[in-house]
Parts: sequence; structure tokens; C-alpha cells
Amino acid sequence: MRLSLKEAQEITKALKFRDGLVVAVTRDSRTKDVLMVASMNRQAVLKTLTTGMMHYWSVSRRRLWLKGEVSRHYQIVQDVHVDCDGDALVFDVKQVGGACHEGYRSCFYRKVKRGELKETLKKSFKPEEVYRSSRG
Amino acid sequence: MRLSLKEAQEITKALKFRDGLVVAVTRDSRTKDVLMVASMNRQAVLKTLTTGMMHYWSVSRRRLWLKGEVSRHYQIVQDVHVDCDGDALVFDVKQVGGACHEGYRSCFYRKVKRGELKETLKKSFKPEEVYRSSRG
Repeated sequence: MRLSLKEAQEITKALKFRDGLVVAVTRDSRTKDVLMVASMNRQAVLKTLTTGMMHYWSVSRRRLWLKGEVSRHYQIVQDVHVDCDGDALVFDVKQVGGACHEGYRSCFYRKVKRGELKETLKKSFKPEEVYRSSRG
Repeated sequence: MRLSLKEAQEITKALKFRDGLVVAVTRDSRTKDVLMVASMNRQAVLKTLTTGMMHYWSVSRRRLWLKGEVSRHYQIVQDVHVDCDGDALVFDVKQVGGACHEGYRSCFYRKVKRGELKETLKKSFKPEEVYRSSRG
């Protein structure tokens, strides 16, 4: 899914950026599994909507971040949902490789079981082979 | 799902509260639809895990908030997933009634279609009959 800049700007008018940010929940478009949760500023939303590739705002690194820029594990946008308050979006994507910088398909690879956190996924790639110095 | 306070405190040790908050993504446990996205402070996480009922931290009202306290549209916790960074959780819940204060089952009732935001859900309840003065 790719929008024109004008269309993307119209969509952002429905958004309420809090401290400049909205929450992005990124799901596997096929399984509906949540892959990751991250922040987006206005620029990240516009880049994502106009290129069809997930971009986030890295709060810690204070910069725009194309998911896959290092790992080549891109996220290709299929559908975009907006919540009532306009401060959260759900993106359904085709995930290349895995979303998690620790080597899992999803960042949500742990679940509470009998009062403890247990891993529910196996690693699907070796992060040391995919990431050099930074995430992405 | 209900944990003892000690178990819940152990789980919160895996969390990284940023400015005191983590992101909660709440899903329908049956359909995996995302119902809402909200913030939780440590108290909201502990209350949710020990009571099995979703509690959030209202940033605007600066108070703990039991989902359903006004509407009776409670969210009963079935499963809890934690992400790699410990700053986001996915809760699978049984949703009583609807999650959205505007009368929809999910807050994500709008989707980008041909460059525009379109409603994808019909209202499932009348908010004016369910909410008196405040959300919840």
C-alpha cells in the first residue's frame, strides 16, 4: 500500500501526536500476530504511508528509522488501522525475515505461564549475522 | 488469569517503564483483533495481573482506571505477552460489550482505503446509554 503525499498528509490530520509521537502496533498480515510496538513521529507516518515500508522514530537514537535498513528485514505495509483517539495505529505488514533484533520473528516471544515468563518462540535468525553495529 | 502479588512483582521486574509507563495492546483472545492501545504504570500492571481484569493508567486524568468501571464492559485477562525490551505488553482478553468509548467493539474501527479513512465496524452499543459522565 502506497499513498500520495497529499493522501498521506490527509490521513495524518486524523492523528493526535502526543509529545510528537503516536504508537505503532505492527502485525503479521497473515497470522495477525503482533510483531512489534514502536513510536512514530509525523515524518515516520508520512514516510511509511508514501513508501509502503515501515518507518519508525527511534526515541533513544532520536532519528527516523527504516525497519530493515541494516537487517534487510523490511516490513511491507498491507493495511493501516487508526484508533478512535488518533494516537495509535495498527499496521498489517508482510514481514521479511524477523521483526525482533534478538532473532525472533516477533518481539513478543515471551508469555506469562504459571506465574513466570516463558519463551514461546524459537529464534528464526542469528542476530549477529544480520546486525552489525545497530538495530534496524 | 490471576497471579499472586509476588508472581506479579516478579513479572514487573522484566519490564522497563519509560517515564513510568509501558504500552498495553489489548486483543480479543478469540479473534486476535486489536481492541485498544493504552498506557499502564506499575500499579496498573500489578492490578491487572493480580485481579485478572484490565486496568490502565489514564495519562489525561492521571489516575488508575479499571476498564469497565463505568460501562461494565470489563476485559478479562486470558494471556499476557511481553516484548524484548520489556516496554510493551500484549494482553489477550475476553471483552464484555465493546472496548471503544464511541460504541464500537474495537477502537480500531477505521482503516485506510483508497487513500482515505473509512469505517470498517458498525457500532455495537450506544455510548450514551453506557457512559454517564466519563469513559471507562
